[in-house]
Amino acid sequence: MSTDRLLHLLRAPAASSSPAARRGSSNPQRLRLPQLAYGVRRASVACSGSGGDVGMTYKSAGVDIDAGTELVRRIAKMAPGIGGFGGLFPWGDDYLVAGTDGVGTKLKLAFESGIHDTIGIDLVAMSVNDIVTSGAKPLFFLDYFATSKLDVDLAEKVIKGIVDGCQQSDCALLGGETAEMPGFYADGEYDLSGFAVGAVKKDKVIDGKNIIEGDVLIVLAKSGLSLNDQLPRNDGLETTVGEALMAPTVIYVKQVLEIISRGGVKGLAHITGGGFTDNIPRVFPSGLGAKIFTGSWEVPPVFQWIQYVGNIEDAEMRRTFNMGIGMVLVVSKEAADSVLKESQGSNRAYCIGEVVKGEGVHYI
Amino acid sequence: MSTDRLLHLLRAPAASSSPAARRGSSNPQRLRLPQLAYGVRRASVACSGSGGDVGMTYKSAGVDIDAGTELVRRIAKMAPGIGGFGGLFPWGDDYLVAGTDGVGTKLKLAFESGIHDTIGIDLVAMSVNDIVTSGAKPLFFLDYFATSKLDVDLAEKVIKGIVDGCQQSDCALLGGETAEMPGFYADGEYDLSGFAVGAVKKDKVIDGKNIIEGDVLIVLAKSGLSLNDQLPRNDGLETTVGEALMAPTVIYVKQVLEIISRGGVKGLAHITGGGFTDNIPRVFPSGLGAKIFTGSWEVPPVFQWIQYVGNIEDAEMRRTFNMGIGMVLVVSKEAADSVLKESQGSNRAYCIGEVVKGEGVHYI
Repeated sequence: MSTDRLLHLLRAPAASSSPAARRGSSNPQRLRLPQLAYGVRRASVACSGSGGDVGMTYKSAGVDIDAGTELVRRIAKMAPGIGGFGGLFPWGDDYLVAGTDGVGTKLKLAFESGIHDTIGIDLVAMSVNDIVTSGAKPLFFLDYFATSKLDVDLAEKVIKGIVDGCQQSDCALLGGETAEMPGFYADGEYDLSGFAVGAVKKDKVIDGKNIIEGDVLIVLAKSGLSLNDQLPRNDGLETTVGEALMAPTVIYVKQVLEIISRGGVKGLAHITGGGFTDNIPRVFPSGLGAKIFTGSWEVPPVFQWIQYVGNIEDAEMRRTFNMGIGMVLVVSKEAADSVLKESQGSNRAYCIGEVVKGEGVHYI
Repeated sequence: MSTDRLLHLLRAPAASSSPAARRGSSNPQRLRLPQLAYGVRRASVACSGSGGDVGMTYKSAGVDIDAGTELVRRIAKMAPGIGGFGGLFPWGDDYLVAGTDGVGTKLKLAFESGIHDTIGIDLVAMSVNDIVTSGAKPLFFLDYFATSKLDVDLAEKVIKGIVDGCQQSDCALLGGETAEMPGFYADGEYDLSGFAVGAVKKDKVIDGKNIIEGDVLIVLAKSGLSLNDQLPRNDGLETTVGEALMAPTVIYVKQVLEIISRGGVKGLAHITGGGFTDNIPRVFPSGLGAKIFTGSWEVPPVFQWIQYVGNIEDAEMRRTFNMGIGMVLVVSKEAADSVLKESQGSNRAYCIGEVVKGEGVHYI
C-alpha cells in the first residue's frame, strides 16, 4: 500500500473522524436535549497533497463540514415531536439505551489488508462503547451486512468477529440481516452497521451533570494499538501500519462497568469521532472545560509516523485522531486515586488532566 | 425505464425476496429455537431472458440459494452459546423484541425514479411490521444511512420518510448514524438499514404455538399498491409501474395491535421475503399447513403485468411476490368473524384460507 493511499485510509473513523455531532448516540448529554440529536460521521477525507510534504487539515482536505451541520439542523426541525431523549428510552425504572454505528472506511483497510475476522469486533465496539458511556449494560446486538454477491467464507469471518465482540461485551447477538444487493458494492466489498441496546437504572444514569471543577480525567489505554509497535517507515515496512490499524477497537464494557460500580464516575466519553478536542467537552456541563497534560500518556508510534509523513500540526492531530486513547472517564478526585491504584497491565488507566472553569480543551 | 431493467428491479425485496430464512428476525417461531436463526436476503436477481419470451424462476435467474443456506449453517455453529432466542430478549415481565432490516434493491427504484421521500417509510415498515408479528408494540427506531458524498437535500428527504414511518408506527426515532464513505457507493446512491425495538408481555407473546386445524387465514390489504392501478403496458405507460412500486410499504402496526387487543390472534406472518408460499407456514406448528382460496382476493394489476411480460408461472409468482398481501393473521374462527365484520376501506381484511393438516401451502 502506498503512503498516500494509507494516509487517505488512515483518516477512517476507528482512528479518526470529523468533529460533527453524532446522530442520537447514547452520549449522556443527550439526556438534556428535548429533541433528537442528529449528526454526521465523515468517514474519510481525500488527501490534498501527495507525499509527506503538504500539511493536511480536514478543511484543506475538502471535507464539507457545513453539509453535515445543515443536515443536523434540518432534521432537528422535522423530528422534535417524535424524538424524546435521543438514545435513552424511559422504560419502568430503567432507561433503555440504544446506539447504532458502522465502522466507516476502516472497512477499506480490511479490503486492502484482507483481514476480515476482526472488523466485526470494531462494529460491536462502536455501539457498545457508546452505550456504556451512560452507565448502561449492553443487553443485545444486531448486525446488518450488505454486499453485492455473498461470499460465504468472507461473511463467516466477518460474523465470527461480531460473535467475538458480543462475547467481549457480554451481550447476546440477537439477530441480523444479510442483504445481497447486486450493483451496490464493488467486488469483494461490503458495508456493516450494528445496533446495540442496553439498560441502566434511571437513578444510576451517568450524564455528566454532576461534573465540577477539579474532577479528574482518567483514560483507559487503547491496547489495540500497542505502544511497542515498530515505527513504520517508507522502506517496505508500511504494512505494519495497516496491520496495527486493523487491530480491533478495544471493547471497554466490562472494565468500565466495573469501575462505575465502585462509584465516583460522573461522565464518560468514547473517543471515536472528533478525536480528543471535540469529544471530551461534550460530556461537560456548560461553563466547564478540560486541561490536558500532554506528556501524561505515551502516544503510540503510529501516530507520530502519521504526523511526520502527513506534516500535520499538533492541534489538528488531536482534533482528528484518538492518539491512542479510546475512553475518557471524568471522576471525582477520591475515585481517581482508587481507579489508578487498581489499574494494571493492558487495563492500565492514566490521569491525563482535570476539569477547569471555562469551556474548551487546553493542552499544557 | 426499459421493461428488462424494470423486471430486474422488480425482484426487489419490497415486492419479493428469496425464501431463505431471515437472520434472527422477530418472527415468533424463533421463540422455539435455542440458537440464533440467521438467514440471508437475496435482494435482486439478474434476468436470464430478455423481453417477455423467457420464463423466469429464481433458479434460472442464477440466485445461489445454497450460499445463503451454507452461511446460516456456519453461523448457527459458531453462535449458539451467545444467541439466546433470536429476536426476543427476556426482560422482567416482558420480551424486548428487536428487528433489523434494509430495503434492499427497492433503493434502485428510488434512484431511478428520483422518489426519495418515501423509501424511509419502507425502511421503518420492514422492521416494525416484523416485530409486531410477535404482538410487540414498537418502542423506538434507529437508522443507518450510508453514502459516498452527503447530499443534504436528498438525505433530508430520506430521513423525512423515516420520521413519517415512525409516526405511523407510533414509535420514537431515537437516533441514527449518517456515514459518509467515499468510494463505497455510486454517485447519488446510498444504503439504508434500520433497527426497531418493541416490547410484549411474556404471557401475551404471539408465537403460533396455539394454531390448530380449522383456524382461519386473514390478510390485510396492501393498500400501497392500489387495486385501481392502471395496468401498465409497453407503450410508454411503464413509469406507472415504477411509481406504483415506489408506493411505500404499508405499516400495519396500529391496525394489527388493535386486532390483537380483541383476542383470538394466534400467529402473524409479515410477507416480504419468499412471498406467500414460504412465509405463511413459518408461523405454524409442525404438521400443519395452509389451504389458500386463490380467488379470495384481488391480485393487483401490476402483478398480472409482471407475470405476463415475465412469462412467470403461478407457483413462481406466489413464491416470489406478495401478490398484494402484506400481512397474514392466523385467527380462531370466532375472531375471524369479528375481524372481517369490523374491517373496512383501506383497512379491509379478507379471509383467504384456513389451516389444514399436513405441511405446506396448497392453492385451490
